[in-house]
Amino acid sequence: MKIGVLGGDGYCGWATALYLSARGHSVAIVDNYARRQWDYELGVQTLTPIKPLAERLKVWEQLTGRSIELFVGDITDYDFLHSTLRAFEPEAIVHFAEQRAAPYSMIDRKHAVFTQVNNVVGTLNLLFALRELAPDCHLVKLGTMGEYGTPNIDIEEGYITIEHNGRKDVLPFPKQPGSFYHLSKVHDSHNIMFACKIWGLRATDLNQGVVYGTVTDEVAFDEALINRFDYDEVFGTVLNRFCAQAVIGHCLTVYGKGGQTRGFLDIRDTVRCIELACLNPAGRGECRVFNQFTEQFSVMELAEAVQTAGRKMGFEVEIEHLPDPRVEAEEHYYNAKHSKLIDLGLQPHYLSDSLLDSLMNIAIRYRDRIDSSLFLPQVNWRQATNARRRQTAVEPVVLAARQG
Amino acid sequence: MKIGVLGGDGYCGWATALYLSARGHSVAIVDNYARRQWDYELGVQTLTPIKPLAERLKVWEQLTGRSIELFVGDITDYDFLHSTLRAFEPEAIVHFAEQRAAPYSMIDRKHAVFTQVNNVVGTLNLLFALRELAPDCHLVKLGTMGEYGTPNIDIEEGYITIEHNGRKDVLPFPKQPGSFYHLSKVHDSHNIMFACKIWGLRATDLNQGVVYGTVTDEVAFDEALINRFDYDEVFGTVLNRFCAQAVIGHCLTVYGKGGQTRGFLDIRDTVRCIELACLNPAGRGECRVFNQFTEQFSVMELAEAVQTAGRKMGFEVEIEHLPDPRVEAEEHYYNAKHSKLIDLGLQPHYLSDSLLDSLMNIAIRYRDRIDSSLFLPQVNWRQATNARRRQTAVEPVVLAARQG
Repeated sequence: MKIGVLGGDGYCGWATALYLSARGHSVAIVDNYARRQWDYELGVQTLTPIKPLAERLKVWEQLTGRSIELFVGDITDYDFLHSTLRAFEPEAIVHFAEQRAAPYSMIDRKHAVFTQVNNVVGTLNLLFALRELAPDCHLVKLGTMGEYGTPNIDIEEGYITIEHNGRKDVLPFPKQPGSFYHLSKVHDSHNIMFACKIWGLRATDLNQGVVYGTVTDEVAFDEALINRFDYDEVFGTVLNRFCAQAVIGHCLTVYGKGGQTRGFLDIRDTVRCIELACLNPAGRGECRVFNQFTEQFSVMELAEAVQTAGRKMGFEVEIEHLPDPRVEAEEHYYNAKHSKLIDLGLQPHYLSDSLLDSLMNIAIRYRDRIDSSLFLPQVNWRQATNARRRQTAVEPVVLAARQG
Repeated sequence: MKIGVLGGDGYCGWATALYLSARGHSVAIVDNYARRQWDYELGVQTLTPIKPLAERLKVWEQLTGRSIELFVGDITDYDFLHSTLRAFEPEAIVHFAEQRAAPYSMIDRKHAVFTQVNNVVGTLNLLFALRELAPDCHLVKLGTMGEYGTPNIDIEEGYITIEHNGRKDVLPFPKQPGSFYHLSKVHDSHNIMFACKIWGLRATDLNQGVVYGTVTDEVAFDEALINRFDYDEVFGTVLNRFCAQAVIGHCLTVYGKGGQTRGFLDIRDTVRCIELACLNPAGRGECRVFNQFTEQFSVMELAEAVQTAGRKMGFEVEIEHLPDPRVEAEEHYYNAKHSKLIDLGLQPHYLSDSLLDSLMNIAIRYRDRIDSSLFLPQVNWRQATNARRRQTAVEPVVLAARQG
């Protein structure tokens, strides 16, 4: 298939582009390098040193004989998007090209507005471009499990049958997103559903859980292909941060009680899910929703797993509870359905001791690059403006904000 | 109370500002005259000739001795909004300052993007300004009944108790909006709900039905205070259009079968609902939703009511069915709750023969200003781009698009 990967220089996008290319698809990456720019803005860098995209693509071609096309630009620029789609003529578009960090969107008003305008306008542009140029092309859009929040009922995949006062309808599952970023994904979901209805577009909205892991088969071919490993408080995810903390003797920083439970998946499953969605497109006019994760964990469960793995490797690993910088339930019911991708053939890679060891080993390998001043949360949901000035490294033992 | 009316030069905003001023509140209007600009863009004008805002305000002060403050600017400009709130220090903000026409948002990509960015950013700015300057100020935000769409179950006021697999929760009512404009209001609702949760703001989201009527007690004081009467295909509402059509012998143009059922209310109830919301503010952290309408009608019921009223006045009034330019159910279940404003004391003005007569009389009075080329829909939901070129007047009998 001809598949365009929007945001193909980012963490999920890069792994996806290589996987699809290796599987014989004709792939184009569309990216404006915004993700690299945000690293500069925040004064952070991925633990793994990543190469410029042009170099990555050259190495990929040398190693595999497969070339990936590249279109550099911003999809909020409609002329650019239009000419890209016209030139590449994709059968499927995988859309990762959004600002994807909740804390980034909560820094202040400008970051909130940027996140929502960037994400909503990019997706609106894409919907119009598909309507105009490629109404049969299948949109595979990355949403997030965070759209649902943590309701006290089971979470269904996108839609729920509601019986009410003796009548019944299948309606979009109610959304309770927990940041201006998560809200932007909810806005996208509503816009996409509407465009499918009025224009007969095909879409799959993938409400993805938290992704962990760095190494996919393709990335492992060569050091030059290595993927991101973000552990900072803004773009880092919790498991990465815990691994980086463990290998330098920093306590694992759990926000609040740590009962926050979310869906998780291995990046090797992300790339397979994307291919499964592409190979089994939605029908004309259909806006399908899949919950894309394989297991649920609470933050404390992950902290304890890293603690065990770390101790086995000889590290002293302690768990610290910080006041939760987010406004969220610290203990709650959580049971989200995720059978549709399994039905399409996904065979999950569950979080195992060996996977945790491999994550720890990456952290050990690049230990000298770890900047412990990036661990502590500086973006507080309760404040409208977070200065987010660079702190000097704080030793775990002097953590002022320690909780019971 | 000190009440800021954002969008106070528009149809609902103007009536509200005068009503609140007459009731003794200290009122400021914030407006950037966008509504007047859109008239120029579309080549249309309100049937009633409205005066410049500065003149309206001068006449109001001369007649009543009450002055209304004026801040001219755009709330998507945060510096302007910030300095305005700082200067006026409102206890309540009534927020009408959005692009409010579904067909306008469906003209093409630029209008869709403009509508969503304008509405979402304006509201985000307002939320941040309230958090920063006036966290106790009560936000009274105009939403729309169109956020709900037409589900096959009863529509509740904002939230619904869902029982599912043996568990229960109160969740936001699922939204199925029918245009990029209606979507923008859904985006706003989610953003407001979140801001109340994280910052403890107070908000009332008024999901308003279709408003009819031009004359409120205050507007009636003087011809210079007259309110808008929009009858064109973009900003006009259905009852106004039918009245304008009836008095010049044009058939009443019903879209499709005319079974589309919506909530309606008299503008005299709009202004009272707004005051009731202001006088009974939401609690800190509460995002309250009221469905603001008093009666449900189908489009055919309204057409028949205007036909009857028109014939009584000696006009020949025929009803024509055009293909529906919108993508919507032409026949459907509709039962929306609307008791919360009644509980606060609203005494509805129901649509009566005398009110219809008064609408017809306005149409007769300004009959010479009716431009029949503005009646026919030129914005088709199924197209991504609608040229919307000015047509010459089309006689009812030669309507090409006539349906059974």
